[in-house]
Amino acid sequence: MALPDEKSFHMTPDEFRRCGHAVIDWIADYHSRLESLPVLSQVKPGEIRASLPAGAPPQGEPFEALLKDVEKLILPGITHWQSPNFFAYFPCNASGPGILGDLLSSGLGAQGMLWSTSPACTELETHVLDWLVPMLGLPEKFLSSSTGGGVIQDTASSASLCALLAARERATNYTSNQKGCDGRITAYVSTQTHSSLEKAAMISGIGRQNLRLIEVDDKFAMRPEALARQVEADKRAGLLPCMVCATIGTTSSNAIDPIAEIAEVCRRHNLWLHLDAAMSGTAMLCPEFRHFQSGVELADSYTFNPHKWMFTNFDCNCFWVADRKALIQTLSILPEYLRNQATESGAVIDYRDWHIQLGRRFRSLKLWFVIRYYGVEGLQHHIREHVRLAQQFAECVRNDDRFELAAPAPLNLVCFRHKAGDEANQMIMDRLNRSGHLFLTHTKLNGKLTLRLCVGQTHTQQKHVKRAWCRICEEAAAFGPGQP
Amino acid sequence: MALPDEKSFHMTPDEFRRCGHAVIDWIADYHSRLESLPVLSQVKPGEIRASLPAGAPPQGEPFEALLKDVEKLILPGITHWQSPNFFAYFPCNASGPGILGDLLSSGLGAQGMLWSTSPACTELETHVLDWLVPMLGLPEKFLSSSTGGGVIQDTASSASLCALLAARERATNYTSNQKGCDGRITAYVSTQTHSSLEKAAMISGIGRQNLRLIEVDDKFAMRPEALARQVEADKRAGLLPCMVCATIGTTSSNAIDPIAEIAEVCRRHNLWLHLDAAMSGTAMLCPEFRHFQSGVELADSYTFNPHKWMFTNFDCNCFWVADRKALIQTLSILPEYLRNQATESGAVIDYRDWHIQLGRRFRSLKLWFVIRYYGVEGLQHHIREHVRLAQQFAECVRNDDRFELAAPAPLNLVCFRHKAGDEANQMIMDRLNRSGHLFLTHTKLNGKLTLRLCVGQTHTQQKHVKRAWCRICEEAAAFGPGQP
Repeated sequence: MALPDEKSFHMTPDEFRRCGHAVIDWIADYHSRLESLPVLSQVKPGEIRASLPAGAPPQGEPFEALLKDVEKLILPGITHWQSPNFFAYFPCNASGPGILGDLLSSGLGAQGMLWSTSPACTELETHVLDWLVPMLGLPEKFLSSSTGGGVIQDTASSASLCALLAARERATNYTSNQKGCDGRITAYVSTQTHSSLEKAAMISGIGRQNLRLIEVDDKFAMRPEALARQVEADKRAGLLPCMVCATIGTTSSNAIDPIAEIAEVCRRHNLWLHLDAAMSGTAMLCPEFRHFQSGVELADSYTFNPHKWMFTNFDCNCFWVADRKALIQTLSILPEYLRNQATESGAVIDYRDWHIQLGRRFRSLKLWFVIRYYGVEGLQHHIREHVRLAQQFAECVRNDDRFELAAPAPLNLVCFRHKAGDEANQMIMDRLNRSGHLFLTHTKLNGKLTLRLCVGQTHTQQKHVKRAWCRICEEAAAFGPGQP
Repeated sequence: MALPDEKSFHMTPDEFRRCGHAVIDWIADYHSRLESLPVLSQVKPGEIRASLPAGAPPQGEPFEALLKDVEKLILPGITHWQSPNFFAYFPCNASGPGILGDLLSSGLGAQGMLWSTSPACTELETHVLDWLVPMLGLPEKFLSSSTGGGVIQDTASSASLCALLAARERATNYTSNQKGCDGRITAYVSTQTHSSLEKAAMISGIGRQNLRLIEVDDKFAMRPEALARQVEADKRAGLLPCMVCATIGTTSSNAIDPIAEIAEVCRRHNLWLHLDAAMSGTAMLCPEFRHFQSGVELADSYTFNPHKWMFTNFDCNCFWVADRKALIQTLSILPEYLRNQATESGAVIDYRDWHIQLGRRFRSLKLWFVIRYYGVEGLQHHIREHVRLAQQFAECVRNDDRFELAAPAPLNLVCFRHKAGDEANQMIMDRLNRSGHLFLTHTKLNGKLTLRLCVGQTHTQQKHVKRAWCRICEEAAAFGPGQP
């Protein structure tokens, strides 16, 4: 977008308009034909790289050539997360308003590390995260008008790392930051907690061995009495317990840890209680699902990902703390070149002190767009629909003697398996995924290979889930007769 | 983009097309009128929030209302980082091809945590980071075909944290990850190194007190002999030195640390050498500036931000390591639900093991677009032009008796001050920034308040830098007569 009076290689505003419209149209077309594409990319390792020139071009190329290459060279290497037939992992859904909000953020190109570097970037974020507190039935202490507050991070991995760091500091009276860890700090998760907590224990210098994996019950939920025993044993051994991470909807099986009972252990031993609701937090938009987070008012921090199930394109994680001072004291650094009047006045939030990174994108824009475009009503409608479809699928499994449910299916994830054993399930999954008709992934529960079907993509409808069940039954036919 | 057969609150493909074109046009217009907007937002704390409704809307709103509110409510709270009159901090520039590449990434909505979750996402990233190795004059060991490889991270803060973690693990024979830190590990930076290294020392459990701030010479560059003395003293004291971070262009004054001499200290004591070239790395596109990174072939890791000065919108940081095994061994975790054939075969890169987060956006797309659209020639042209303009500005300062240069200006950052002292400089800066005509920030060098002018915004041309100098002279008139 250069002025004509100097030699320039920049895109002019007119060219941006033309190329931008073409990209918008390409995306609209892509979403319209998504169902016709194989969900899981079928390329072999190295195939995409082999199609690319060995070195960077010395001279520039026209934009049209780039867009053509996305279609020709890149698209075959894409696993279509936005396909309505994507049932793998946890979803990572998106929507028109989210994509366009993010585009505006790119166009503005503001960097919100400090309040003063773009006040709207900070204030809209605080505001939207305050909106979400009652929307999700979270306690008032998470509001910025109280002692807490929310911040947008990239992923739940980063948010949980920040929770662990704040807990580490609170437990050591803010000395670990200064003197380093001493190998005595412990933290607690269940055997089913997301692996990011193990990574956080490694990153934070606490050490993997000091992360206790508490056993779970037959529903894969943490046993509070086992937690209490471990904390007490560690204290007797002279260790310093700092945090428990409980999960509302584990990645493996969507298990729901008993928060209130875990919180009681935390209260007794003065431990930070962090709640990871990365996917299932979105369900809390609907009051009828909030019993799954009963006890949430006792948490010190809470995190969920609008980029998983709330139609806000990646990356967008929300993280709240009850005591923002603990978080800020843990992560704050203020070199001279970032000093400014607004910060010194204490009247503003500088989000750089709320996460690992310094620089930050204007991510609240897309979240604001999604909430306003759908309204609470629209979000609730689609979440309820996804849960309804998953429950329908679970019913199909229950009614088919060849299959069994491998775990309770409280919301939109169904864990199931063919009774013919691991090999059969692996073969069914591999054949389904290679067919391109749908994509699902597996886990292990009680040592057995288990298939996971998660309903959460923006455009997944009843027909897609029904077809998925039909295709599963087709592949299962190899292992015995089906239902009448 | 819903099909019509079910109740839906989603945006249809047609509506996405229409709204998307409107957003593209808004951005094109925004970039065309950027010069007429006050660079630094002039709002007061709380002003933006006060204009927003207290709660989320129960019902959805039309997209047009959202776009209108961006113009009316958000824009006044934006500090215009893309303005050609933005000379503050380090730049965070952007370009048409970068913005559109990022838009495609949002539209595809792929999540590249594993090779298999979108092979193109991983392979394009590896490929483009291999392209950049010769483009920046980096050593071949950073190539993925050698023992190393590159990865895109969000910011240099995260990349440097990863370098520190890998160094910590290498020094402790990969036991800190398991057992936690023990307070004996030390790392080395200069007094001028970016604050993110202090934050990294806090996060990693190494501790701020174990990060040694080595003194600098009169050009604000680290003194290798002081580094050597400190390392030796620490080893005598039974401590475990693990890493030195040297900077190619410090944030405060763009000082260049003597890499070859520092590398010799590292070699002698088996320390990881990390190079932070966050902004100035982009200058290495031009062979005539590569003498500033002389010795780079001795580094264990290197990081620079295309989102600062290379026309790639935020966030986009590139990070290379010479020994990818050390990085992967430091950050790898593999739960059952992420296992897959491609990963087990060992034939692919899974980038989740190369950074803090698990989930990841398809960021190489925008970087690929920028490199291809400009070509090496176009990138070089604009970088050279920015450096030329900054040098012209430095010449103006040199020729004016009221002012002095406060540090060498090797590239595109000029540190200068009025000789009338701190108060005068603070007043000049405040008046300039409040005028909205330009935005610059300060630092302290040798205890004196120093103004920083950094030329790096995409559309900054000679006339903008000239006008900045005129405006500075106008404000300086209050402190004595100007030059003839």
